[in-house]
Amino acid sequence: MALGKDYAAQQCSIARALEVVGERWTLLVVRDAFYGVRRYNDFLAHLGIPRAVLASRLQALTEAGVLARRRYQDSPPRDEYVLTDSGKALWPTVRSLGLWGREHIEGTLPKRLFLHAACGTELGAYGQCPACGIGVPPEDVEMRPGPGLDPAPEDPVSRALLAPRRLLQPLDADRV
Amino acid sequence: MALGKDYAAQQCSIARALEVVGERWTLLVVRDAFYGVRRYNDFLAHLGIPRAVLASRLQALTEAGVLARRRYQDSPPRDEYVLTDSGKALWPTVRSLGLWGREHIEGTLPKRLFLHAACGTELGAYGQCPACGIGVPPEDVEMRPGPGLDPAPEDPVSRALLAPRRLLQPLDADRV
Repeated sequence: MALGKDYAAQQCSIARALEVVGERWTLLVVRDAFYGVRRYNDFLAHLGIPRAVLASRLQALTEAGVLARRRYQDSPPRDEYVLTDSGKALWPTVRSLGLWGREHIEGTLPKRLFLHAACGTELGAYGQCPACGIGVPPEDVEMRPGPGLDPAPEDPVSRALLAPRRLLQPLDADRV
Repeated sequence: MALGKDYAAQQCSIARALEVVGERWTLLVVRDAFYGVRRYNDFLAHLGIPRAVLASRLQALTEAGVLARRRYQDSPPRDEYVLTDSGKALWPTVRSLGLWGREHIEGTLPKRLFLHAACGTELGAYGQCPACGIGVPPEDVEMRPGPGLDPAPEDPVSRALLAPRRLLQPLDADRV
């Protein structure tokens, strides 16, 4: 991947991780996968990203084992992209980046809140549940609209994401 | 910053965070700041990064309030760069990325281990101490050499970082 060459002298785990997820847009593709987005056209609608860039990011994340490609329709052939276990392990990174943006960049209102589904408590700075004292895996996280969320978005994916939902629950925006 | 324009339609906290720390090399500069690196020449020696890129990253991180610039010598004038409280709040992100790289990228041996200084337990996936059940702030993290660390590195900063040390403890590689 493009960062590999520049980071070649940096053999630390953080540098290796950035080779995979440090490219422009990559972590937003991963974020959308946590939200349940799986299909090329849905990523496209939600991210507003150039087609060639999206295709390149999906391919790179698949080659790196973060996403797995699965055929969901044969005629015409259509694939979807699903987080692997390795990809799901990026949840603490995505969560901590989001919380940092909300708390440390001026004027950022949370678009979405992330709660421990079992008890309704908002996740803490480390992705843990402050009430239960455990790290919460993404399957057990409920996403709810926050005060910064546009209540009438234009794209169908954002509309589908308006309602409270579990992370990783497949989104099928075509049916909304 | 360069990512701002592309991410303009992405008003979520994660996208805002990536505008600040999503540039190539930026999180490695922040990582080094956690290791105690403060001076331009030390970042340069440790990162092996082009001078112009380093200068641009330090300036952008200072403008974003992640680093603060402080004069440490008047003649000739020399500044150092220190993590602000906002910058220190990036620790869970840096930690989770590093752990992900180590556990999910093949062939990655940990160069450094990160322990809760109070009890000697290695930090968990969320930056928490599994023994004490708390999120550990970077000031209370001890960094120790791991099995992937080069025991005889060429640059003086890497040599200074061979011994166990607290995160954020200022590094003065000139004296090593």
